[in-house]
Amino acid sequence: MSPFKVLAFDIFGTTVDWWTGIAGQACRLAAGRGIELDGGAFAEDWRGRYVPSMDRVRRGELPWQNLDALHRRSLDELLDEWGIGSAFDEPARAELVRAWHRLPSWPDAAGGLARLRDRHVLAATSNGGFALLTNLVKAERLPFDCVISAELARHYKPDPEVYLMVAALLDAEPAEVLMVAAHIWDLAGARAAGLRTAFVERPLEKGPSGQADRAEDADADLVATSFTDLATQLGC
Amino acid sequence: MSPFKVLAFDIFGTTVDWWTGIAGQACRLAAGRGIELDGGAFAEDWRGRYVPSMDRVRRGELPWQNLDALHRRSLDELLDEWGIGSAFDEPARAELVRAWHRLPSWPDAAGGLARLRDRHVLAATSNGGFALLTNLVKAERLPFDCVISAELARHYKPDPEVYLMVAALLDAEPAEVLMVAAHIWDLAGARAAGLRTAFVERPLEKGPSGQADRAEDADADLVATSFTDLATQLGC
Repeated sequence: MSPFKVLAFDIFGTTVDWWTGIAGQACRLAAGRGIELDGGAFAEDWRGRYVPSMDRVRRGELPWQNLDALHRRSLDELLDEWGIGSAFDEPARAELVRAWHRLPSWPDAAGGLARLRDRHVLAATSNGGFALLTNLVKAERLPFDCVISAELARHYKPDPEVYLMVAALLDAEPAEVLMVAAHIWDLAGARAAGLRTAFVERPLEKGPSGQADRAEDADADLVATSFTDLATQLGC
Repeated sequence: MSPFKVLAFDIFGTTVDWWTGIAGQACRLAAGRGIELDGGAFAEDWRGRYVPSMDRVRRGELPWQNLDALHRRSLDELLDEWGIGSAFDEPARAELVRAWHRLPSWPDAAGGLARLRDRHVLAATSNGGFALLTNLVKAERLPFDCVISAELARHYKPDPEVYLMVAALLDAEPAEVLMVAAHIWDLAGARAAGLRTAFVERPLEKGPSGQADRAEDADADLVATSFTDLATQLGC
């Protein structure tokens, strides 16, 4: 029997494939403007600004703003640095930011969640904004029971407020919550807040040539290769 | 085409049948203690204390507490007034409060929501706590896209904060949100906050002899007899 009441799933990289989704949408949008873009490199550069931008909010250098706002801020920098800013007007930039609301899920995600759902409450628990997460989950028909965005705490992971909010909102002790993520920094934050942790290896998270976190470096209670593997390990 | 982006559904009475659920569970729990209880009357008396208890929080007479805490407070009063307090120990009282986490949905609810979901974001929007709502929705497998409990705003409907939170979290203008409820007071609050309104008539909400709100008294943008009727009216 699983000792967990709640399974909290990270989303970007863990549940959905941001690299493929952003690379494809950016490439297509650029092509419509006559620009041949290396979508994968663009996606990686954009995503590389994710943790630093949140850290500025976490340190209090920027006022609270949700991930859409941070994505827009880093997109503006990115387009300038790539020398293609003039090709992307306001509606095009808004559409690019919106690309993060529609990303393909990993092939095992929906099936694994469906098995895990019978015995656990499943929460989509991400630094993405509430609308973003709701849109992602809806578009991919992922069988989560609820969406708990970091936006609700006005804190970003790995701040403990986010992990503790999940436990509090779902009437669980922190140790009854299993945080599932493909990122070592996220699981370290969860563990520091008293949650249990599961590392899911996503070797292609940063594209075919990117350096994704690896299972051998993860210090987690459970290590799995997919959501279906996790379901098997938890007896679901 | 539907002009709404988000459909926000009230839960108790509108989506689930609290009268049948509480009457049955209270009756069964009492029988296990040798008490023959009129479950329906007990459910109605308990539910009758719902709006007054929230109003005390809304007026600032009680500090913020979620609906489980208010249910427990009113249950303690109720058991005393009914002269059966001694038969219900702490675990039995906790179990009774927990009865509100598992209630049958109206027969048209899941099917109507499934049709409406293709074109709208569906939010469970209730004064119930976040865990309570998540448990209710999960047990009945209701296809909502997200749970937005009043607990997240630390306000109870009909305070405008709750309705405006739904719009803000889902990136919608208030007028793009349709509040769906079987209660005139809820829709009046939604309208005052700038939302659109749909009244769904639930004649049995307060049991076979109770006085449920009626369509002819509702001042709403739409009036429907069920969620499937609402789906048809919205072209879904």
